[in-house]
Amino acid sequence: MKLNDLPTPAALLDAQRLHHNIQRMQARLQGLGVRLRPHVKTAKCVPVAELQKAAGAQGLTVSTLKEAEQFFAAGFDDLLYAVCIPPTKLAQARALRERGCRLTVTTDSLTGAQALVDSGHAFEVMIEIDTDGHRAGVLPDAALLLDIGRLLHQGGQNLTGVMTHAGASYDCRSPQELIQMAEQERSRCVHAAQRLRGAGLPCPEVSVGSTPTALAAQHLAGVTEVRAGVYVFQDLVMHGIGVATLDELAMSVLTTVIGHQTDKGWVLVDAGWMAMSRDRGTQDQALDWGYGAVCDESGDLIDGMWMHSANQEHGILAWRRAGADDTLAERFPVGTRLRILPNHACATAAAFSEYQVLDAAGDVQTWDRFNGW
Amino acid sequence: MKLNDLPTPAALLDAQRLHHNIQRMQARLQGLGVRLRPHVKTAKCVPVAELQKAAGAQGLTVSTLKEAEQFFAAGFDDLLYAVCIPPTKLAQARALRERGCRLTVTTDSLTGAQALVDSGHAFEVMIEIDTDGHRAGVLPDAALLLDIGRLLHQGGQNLTGVMTHAGASYDCRSPQELIQMAEQERSRCVHAAQRLRGAGLPCPEVSVGSTPTALAAQHLAGVTEVRAGVYVFQDLVMHGIGVATLDELAMSVLTTVIGHQTDKGWVLVDAGWMAMSRDRGTQDQALDWGYGAVCDESGDLIDGMWMHSANQEHGILAWRRAGADDTLAERFPVGTRLRILPNHACATAAAFSEYQVLDAAGDVQTWDRFNGW
Repeated sequence: MKLNDLPTPAALLDAQRLHHNIQRMQARLQGLGVRLRPHVKTAKCVPVAELQKAAGAQGLTVSTLKEAEQFFAAGFDDLLYAVCIPPTKLAQARALRERGCRLTVTTDSLTGAQALVDSGHAFEVMIEIDTDGHRAGVLPDAALLLDIGRLLHQGGQNLTGVMTHAGASYDCRSPQELIQMAEQERSRCVHAAQRLRGAGLPCPEVSVGSTPTALAAQHLAGVTEVRAGVYVFQDLVMHGIGVATLDELAMSVLTTVIGHQTDKGWVLVDAGWMAMSRDRGTQDQALDWGYGAVCDESGDLIDGMWMHSANQEHGILAWRRAGADDTLAERFPVGTRLRILPNHACATAAAFSEYQVLDAAGDVQTWDRFNGW
Repeated sequence: MKLNDLPTPAALLDAQRLHHNIQRMQARLQGLGVRLRPHVKTAKCVPVAELQKAAGAQGLTVSTLKEAEQFFAAGFDDLLYAVCIPPTKLAQARALRERGCRLTVTTDSLTGAQALVDSGHAFEVMIEIDTDGHRAGVLPDAALLLDIGRLLHQGGQNLTGVMTHAGASYDCRSPQELIQMAEQERSRCVHAAQRLRGAGLPCPEVSVGSTPTALAAQHLAGVTEVRAGVYVFQDLVMHGIGVATLDELAMSVLTTVIGHQTDKGWVLVDAGWMAMSRDRGTQDQALDWGYGAVCDESGDLIDGMWMHSANQEHGILAWRRAGADDTLAERFPVGTRLRILPNHACATAAAFSEYQVLDAAGDVQTWDRFNGW
């Protein structure tokens, strides 16, 4: 199949950029002396994970038990479920483990830890650490950390370490801020590990990560593995943060022009928010891309144009300097095909059940992805 | 199956509210003397459309050709594809028609009309009218309207009428504004029809609609059918516009508490933006609901609480009056199940491949929905 054969909208993956992104992160973390455990929540695609594994990744990170089921079925048996597990999900996690999946679970509460102990099954467990006030996790200096550690360890659980995710890195606005955030993520997580060890508790693993901090960290002393997800596709948010060039954005949405409003300078396309997602991640960045950056069919950026708004199945493209443009219908006739680079690859990819993977020879292969829980 | 058996997150449908919403819209439009052609883009679910049909709906509206394929396969043969069709989609539309589907297509350009004529197949075609400057369509007074009409009619296409969608109704902030917008949508679309008829062109159908205008219109003289979609589930955006009570919101996301940050007054749940969508449709309304309104497991609103932020698989619930609350872990222990009412039902539903339909007896049935193109 060729690009020209694809119906629109379609999730297009540039194979060369995908390979580049995988190599780039793997080489960087190898240089920093840590393992990479990619987060599969972005692509949810077995062939993508196979490329990551072939490049040297060790284990995968999942955000849902469905991801765990799917990747275990595809032969990946070292998985970290990086969302604190509630009691209601323990039976499914245990069943996966009893089928041979080395699924590590996480917790950040005494209730969660007690439920693990009460399950009567010895899980491998990491304690989630809050290193940036962003989301979940125990503060590295909290008494609670040792209480959870003791409860797990004395209760027969295999305490394998601590993990954190510095989601606040998405708000960093300079290389210096990124470097500081990466160091904060590292140092606070390592400190939590040291407290556990100091209390005589096992803590072999220290797992940190987000794409921005993974690409900004100056050193990762004390860390054993890094988790990162969106690096595999990159997106406009990562570009705005400063950790990806536009040339590294591997996923775009292929779309077709369906109309114009020349009085307003609008080009209407068949990729609306259902295809792009409602993610407006660049809204608060220095350069707001609306719902995406506009490229021609071959992937070259059309300078000055953005998807300024979106309805369910309509995208509205316009020049940043708005105004009437009666050349639009000639320049982008109905039927013209364009590519839109997304704000947030994880959200945009979720609109699709497959990727159309375009190689350097212009051939297209279809790779399945899955959604849901 | 019972509510208690459902894994989370899940898209929960309240069957009574669903029936109420269907009856309410059907009765209203019957009272106004027009047909209802529901837009299936919201639910994308055959059993929902069957309820709409049983209540008196005539024909369906689709936003993608996949919806057309799926609903035709389920026995619905009167479909309006309400997005202007580009030349690249004509072959698929024609194939559907040749299999017996009465699929009406739409256009708003000479290029689009010419492609229909050049196809050599006599489609049923509506011309899209721009009645609110919101999106696509020809202005009702434009010379272009008659040019497109003549091109279609003289080219052997079956010009069946005009259609419009007053999407600007979503920005209305008072009942009076809504009534005015409904009248603007009606009068401008009827005016376009009169111009076509005055030029000797056929225009039997005048199709208008959006949920807000359908529920606000005082009369619909000259209109033959109304299209509306989200009314079937309703949502917080419709509530904010003033056309739905909270008791009419039929869809919610069932979720489980996975942790707390009591210092910040946060309750973390397993429904993040992947389940709720990134739609922030209430952001600019009088009451911003963040990513959703929080209810207990039985559906009663928890006053003063909202989903104030969301990560991919984490929702963060908080009191509107933010601040530490060390009673949260007692009041909403890990494992507690809650329901979240979404901003925008079309976007939230799209995260799921099925609905869990809860009836008055507490029994749950699963209804499939589809996504993609």
